[in-house]
Amino acid sequence: MLLVLAHGSRRHGSNEEVRRLSGRLGELLGERYARVAPAFLELAEPPIPAAIDAAVSAGADEVVLFPYFLAAGRHVCDDIPRLVAEARRRHPRVRLELRPHLGELPGLLPLLAEYLR
Amino acid sequence: MLLVLAHGSRRHGSNEEVRRLSGRLGELLGERYARVAPAFLELAEPPIPAAIDAAVSAGADEVVLFPYFLAAGRHVCDDIPRLVAEARRRHPRVRLELRPHLGELPGLLPLLAEYLR
Repeated sequence: MLLVLAHGSRRHGSNEEVRRLSGRLGELLGERYARVAPAFLELAEPPIPAAIDAAVSAGADEVVLFPYFLAAGRHVCDDIPRLVAEARRRHPRVRLELRPHLGELPGLLPLLAEYLR
Repeated sequence: MLLVLAHGSRRHGSNEEVRRLSGRLGELLGERYARVAPAFLELAEPPIPAAIDAAVSAGADEVVLFPYFLAAGRHVCDDIPRLVAEARRRHPRVRLELRPHLGELPGLLPLLAEYLR
């Protein structure tokens, strides 16, 4: 199972973007993950802890968590690692793998340079 | 001139990430832009209006503005377009080109799929 972790927004359309992204990743990565779903830090449903709990209840023994964040701010450095640590205590038998956030992807800079050229 | 528009964070390191990104884009895109610099919506220096004004004072007759944001939330949909509209009124002779935000880059989804595979 892959969870795409986003901030969440008061703007409905912004949360829908994340849901659409999760859906498309689910199509592209169907062989790697049984399911891809979004989860939000605040302002949108489901919250990250509930999404992890739901994945475990549904039988996942591995949950990959991908922070869909550009900057290593408070959310990426503190809030998300804390939520994951808490979830590990709730589900000691499940492998919760927190990936580096999007802003750290090595391919991002060449993509931006190509687009802005 | 290219301005990389970011949110700004209380966390110094997060703002530094944006400054580093701007620096690396400046190296990669030196033939296209005389300068690449960061500008922030809040919590970091320089603010977007001041960065635009400084570019114009330095002689730029074109400023490309790239919102380094993932989601089309309030900042991308309302705040940044408003700041750009205000800057256009201050500098009617300068071409201010507001680009789509990072989250809309077509190449982003394949990059994510590759990374998460």
